[in-house]
Amino acid sequence: MHIHLINPNSTASMTAQALESALLVKHAHTHVSASNPTDTPASIEGGADEAMSVPGMLAEIRQGEAQGVDAYVIACFDDPGLHAAREVAKGPVIGICQAAVQVAMTISRRFSVITTLPRSVPIIEDLVSDYGAERHCRKVRAIDLPVLALEEDPQRAERLLLKEIEIAKAEDGAEAIVLGCAGMSSLCDRLQKATGVPVIDGVTAAVKMAEALLGAGYATSKVNTYAYPRIKAAAGHKVCA
Amino acid sequence: MHIHLINPNSTASMTAQALESALLVKHAHTHVSASNPTDTPASIEGGADEAMSVPGMLAEIRQGEAQGVDAYVIACFDDPGLHAAREVAKGPVIGICQAAVQVAMTISRRFSVITTLPRSVPIIEDLVSDYGAERHCRKVRAIDLPVLALEEDPQRAERLLLKEIEIAKAEDGAEAIVLGCAGMSSLCDRLQKATGVPVIDGVTAAVKMAEALLGAGYATSKVNTYAYPRIKAAAGHKVCA
Amino acid sequence: MHIHLINPNSTASMTAQALESALLVKHAHTHVSASNPTDTPASIEGGADEAMSVPGMLAEIRQGEAQGVDAYVIACFDDPGLHAAREVAKGPVIGICQAAVQVAMTISRRFSVITTLPRSVPIIEDLVSDYGAERHCRKVRAIDLPVLALEEDPQRAERLLLKEIEIAKAEDGAEAIVLGCAGMSSLCDRLQKATGVPVIDGVTAAVKMAEALLGAGYATSKVNTYAYPRIKAAAGHKVCA
Amino acid sequence: MHIHLINPNSTASMTAQALESALLVKHAHTHVSASNPTDTPASIEGGADEAMSVPGMLAEIRQGEAQGVDAYVIACFDDPGLHAAREVAKGPVIGICQAAVQVAMTISRRFSVITTLPRSVPIIEDLVSDYGAERHCRKVRAIDLPVLALEEDPQRAERLLLKEIEIAKAEDGAEAIVLGCAGMSSLCDRLQKATGVPVIDGVTAAVKMAEALLGAGYATSKVNTYAYPRIKAAAGHKVCA
Amino acid sequence: MHIHLINPNSTASMTAQALESALLVKHAHTHVSASNPTDTPASIEGGADEAMSVPGMLAEIRQGEAQGVDAYVIACFDDPGLHAAREVAKGPVIGICQAAVQVAMTISRRFSVITTLPRSVPIIEDLVSDYGAERHCRKVRAIDLPVLALEEDPQRAERLLLKEIEIAKAEDGAEAIVLGCAGMSSLCDRLQKATGVPVIDGVTAAVKMAEALLGAGYATSKVNTYAYPRIKAAAGHKVCA
Amino acid sequence: MHIHLINPNSTASMTAQALESALLVKHAHTHVSASNPTDTPASIEGGADEAMSVPGMLAEIRQGEAQGVDAYVIACFDDPGLHAAREVAKGPVIGICQAAVQVAMTISRRFSVITTLPRSVPIIEDLVSDYGAERHCRKVRAIDLPVLALEEDPQRAERLLLKEIEIAKAEDGAEAIVLGCAGMSSLCDRLQKATGVPVIDGVTAAVKMAEALLGAGYATSKVNTYAYPRIKAAAGHKVCA
Repeated sequence: MHIHLINPNSTASMTAQALESALLVKHAHTHVSASNPTDTPASIEGGADEAMSVPGMLAEIRQGEAQGVDAYVIACFDDPGLHAAREVAKGPVIGICQAAVQVAMTISRRFSVITTLPRSVPIIEDLVSDYGAERHCRKVRAIDLPVLALEEDPQRAERLLLKEIEIAKAEDGAEAIVLGCAGMSSLCDRLQKATGVPVIDGVTAAVKMAEALLGAGYATSKVNTYAYPRIKAAAGHKVCA
Repeated sequence: MHIHLINPNSTASMTAQALESALLVKHAHTHVSASNPTDTPASIEGGADEAMSVPGMLAEIRQGEAQGVDAYVIACFDDPGLHAAREVAKGPVIGICQAAVQVAMTISRRFSVITTLPRSVPIIEDLVSDYGAERHCRKVRAIDLPVLALEEDPQRAERLLLKEIEIAKAEDGAEAIVLGCAGMSSLCDRLQKATGVPVIDGVTAAVKMAEALLGAGYATSKVNTYAYPRIKAAAGHKVCA
Repeated sequence: MHIHLINPNSTASMTAQALESALLVKHAHTHVSASNPTDTPASIEGGADEAMSVPGMLAEIRQGEAQGVDAYVIACFDDPGLHAAREVAKGPVIGICQAAVQVAMTISRRFSVITTLPRSVPIIEDLVSDYGAERHCRKVRAIDLPVLALEEDPQRAERLLLKEIEIAKAEDGAEAIVLGCAGMSSLCDRLQKATGVPVIDGVTAAVKMAEALLGAGYATSKVNTYAYPRIKAAAGHKVCA
Repeated sequence: MHIHLINPNSTASMTAQALESALLVKHAHTHVSASNPTDTPASIEGGADEAMSVPGMLAEIRQGEAQGVDAYVIACFDDPGLHAAREVAKGPVIGICQAAVQVAMTISRRFSVITTLPRSVPIIEDLVSDYGAERHCRKVRAIDLPVLALEEDPQRAERLLLKEIEIAKAEDGAEAIVLGCAGMSSLCDRLQKATGVPVIDGVTAAVKMAEALLGAGYATSKVNTYAYPRIKAAAGHKVCA
Repeated sequence: MHIHLINPNSTASMTAQALESALLVKHAHTHVSASNPTDTPASIEGGADEAMSVPGMLAEIRQGEAQGVDAYVIACFDDPGLHAAREVAKGPVIGICQAAVQVAMTISRRFSVITTLPRSVPIIEDLVSDYGAERHCRKVRAIDLPVLALEEDPQRAERLLLKEIEIAKAEDGAEAIVLGCAGMSSLCDRLQKATGVPVIDGVTAAVKMAEALLGAGYATSKVNTYAYPRIKAAAGHKVCA
Repeated sequence: MHIHLINPNSTASMTAQALESALLVKHAHTHVSASNPTDTPASIEGGADEAMSVPGMLAEIRQGEAQGVDAYVIACFDDPGLHAAREVAKGPVIGICQAAVQVAMTISRRFSVITTLPRSVPIIEDLVSDYGAERHCRKVRAIDLPVLALEEDPQRAERLLLKEIEIAKAEDGAEAIVLGCAGMSSLCDRLQKATGVPVIDGVTAAVKMAEALLGAGYATSKVNTYAYPRIKAAAGHKVCA
């Protein structure tokens, strides 16, 4: 089985890190590849960054379809373009936020999410609500660090995350922590060991979920919402009235 | 005041129709312009079409910002890229679905939405829920007609809509009808007259809402979620692992 | 177009202040009038005050109907009698809480409300939920000042509001503030300038919304819930069993 | 213990019928009295009728307070002025809709409500939701009969109710039926016997709930929302601007 | 009328305390008995304790049915096996959590719950949500004291409860307090007197609710969900594959 | 890795069927075993059957813990005792309803559930809501066939399921179907082939989910709610007051 992981932003080092997380947990016989578009924002911090990354991400999926990819993981915690991707792909498409939330709802009864920037908090709250975890998720927190700073100063990121996890345990009664950014993936194990609370990385969760769905033979339903998009030429002459 | 209406798809005749609807209701002193991107799908039917239309739509907004546009209307009922657009624009950005839903919640206590294709029904249901009208909206219905067929055979579209409105009145107890596609805009008055129930066109609603917000001096909050996106170069070298 | 603003309480100076706010933002050709009943409580602080003010408010609307008023604004943040008023009026009836909430949902993604007395907090929370903004509204706060004290000591009111807005920004992550009392209307601009966050006054929002609805030709749906009440004589002989 | 039942409309025969239902189920030592205002609508069908009935109903409560009444039942299924009444009364105030819904949630897992006019359906749906039974209530149905017709032609009312209960059982999977109008009270037993499904009359439910609360010593909380309203003179000079 | 109170755990002194609370409020003519299974956990602290207590509790109900018991109260705040018990019993079965929540929603607009151990907080939150009080319940709090310590050191329990009630008043704006453990029953009056806020004990609430339902002639609906369970022999041969 | 599947009822043939479904999809290196208690009801149809099956099911888990089982699947669609089981187990415990719902939310946007008896419909509706799929699940349907009849007359079961799936597609717009009973597991593939819509069997879904969680190293959080239950002797002397 071939799972292709797409980092929607154009920072190759983040793609590499996500791939590394995936390789650590994949089954021996699973083939995991990874790519990112080259013309999308360097990091995804908010809705405009998301929007600018989706067409490039969909192009990766279209290419994957031509190459026989079985399932996809979108390695950005905002799950940008998740519904669109499911229209384009035949097999399952897993968003790392949805996968992490599903794991959190299975191994704990109340969890908190910790993300990078405060501006992502309402976006993630709305996602969590869409995925049905409004009551299970105590709080979405932010350490107020830009996405790329996770790579540039991992020690600082780890310190801030450790501190925020302790606050989430004490104030939220969080029984598990979801890391709210793909770029936090490599810190997951150390954070769990240091805090004694399960820490869930979406990339890991999504890769295993993709294997699970493929192993059971599930594909994306092509009935109604996720049917393939109809091929349509761009029609347009510019209007300026 | 200058309101710019963007049709996110690339069918210029739909842009023209939306502009016409806007011109019919705008204040004498409001300047309304309209445009569409030229490289986006010819119609927006589902999430992939939406995703492919948003970067072009954001480009129109960036151009509008340079030209001093005061407010924007996104003339597609899925409100594609609405949150992203609000990050990019200084002034208000109005989605025609949100505007229509707000009008429907003000002039009736229970309403139904009628859109084109069944695949859009869950998308619109989720939007309606995001806009807080889950209890007020009885049902999202579809006449099972592609978007472009609205223009190609308006008589058929009108017949199908008339029939669906009567069903919505009888079965849903709908007290108002929201037209779930910008391309239905020109049929609005005839449908209302024929059925005796208020029929709400999102383009009309959004243009007037934009005038209202501008008239009161409201702009998009730049605190947190809708702050301007940070300028980031694409970083990417293609990775293929 | 003729918009009539009704202050449901009997304090004429509050009516005058609300009218002043309305006149500042209305279109040149809009006629805005204002009145209040004379036999209702001097301020509306809780459900009993609301209840005692509604029949007088409905009488103002009945009189307005006779005089050809096109739309009404109910200038009390509890939106007392809003549904009843819509049954009586032909044109749109706008509640300042609903209007402010709709604006807040359009220009921000998370907002907080600041009202006068703590006893109004649950009332406003329930309204906000009815208007579909449960997830968008972070918190309803109170400065613990009676309504009439807003007029008697505006400096103190402003100080308390400034302080509470800063708390809402810091603790709630509020991206916009809704003023939860018509009597705060005149402070709106100063508060916005001092805090750098959009501050929304319901009177302003409602007047512009009324203009918008009228400009688009919308009237209250007379299908089902908001149909005119049937004329019924009081039937009653007192029973005492 | 003294429970006073208030029919908010001015039709004394309805008051008498409600009192009769109360007397059938009250404890031997409970004193139940009943009254109605004389200047309110003859029946309550919608929000305007509700609004016009509340001040008269509150006057009955104020009089009851002077006479040492221990608890009140508001005998109209829209629970008009329920929150206001709780501010005015020292003891518990029971709405027949809330009481019936609480009983239905206790003796069944899914129920339907059957009321008189379709215009009351959204009003009752919103009440049911406020009382937390949104998931437990399958559907609010209407037999499309004016309130007073229940008394004028009880045979017809019974036939319509029987038919609607059978539909609710078959289509809704209703496990219990709540009668959505105080005027249906006297039909309750016959309907239950004829249909084999528990049928809940709000007057009965509310009287027993009032006895229960008094028996346990509960009174309305005077902390915050339901604190007594402050005494305020009407302030008003008519403004007409 | 005969109400039988079942303490699902096997600590007889807790059964005796609950019975004492019941006897204090029951009507003169009500017969209240009490029992507990002997093979269940000594206290119920979490889901496993609940599960181990339910078959014994159902056996008590089956025995009660044979003896003509009219209604049952399950005297554990987690309402363990409540739905199962309703299948087995003919008459009403009242859970002390549901009863207390219904009282709290009737005499206040916002309340908080205070229970023993933090691990019960999410369990009670979910119950409160099932009973429809998600918006009315501000917070579920825990004093972090094991259930049996309530009996062993009642002074300490009282001190901790007093402190937590004051926090609930100040931070939650709680207008009433629900005691989240049957073992707190005997402290209820003292806590109410000391804090000036209504304090609701579930045992008291449930006994009065049971009397109310019986007095009105209500029984558990045997239509669908709460129908008697079909008699089925255990079929089992152990499989070990 | 060792996954142990527990059928909570005592019908060994159902255990064998569930095991067969598990063996079909498990990874080569996964060890899957299965068992059922011998003293529980022959099938689980409603809350009382559930309650009677949970202690036996927990005993199987305790035995599994002693034997080093890594994860558990509870093979009954009501997910009986799921939260309790998570307290007892160190590793993940997967309920087949929760797993099926998570798959359905990932491969479709709207789905319906089809179960055996109508009495299970509200139970499953509440589970679906607890798992956050209230909006995604169009309807829970029943074919009105007892659980054991699935085995006794599989042809009839298949016919009824086929018919109900077609209704779900046409009336609900279901994009995927979840089979609401472990006993339907062996029919899953045939139903999917015959109807062209993804059909999800909970046993399959849960086994793959268990493999996924184990493969990623996730265990049940022992922080707070799912902490091991404290060892407590039964304390009980029977009280009969």
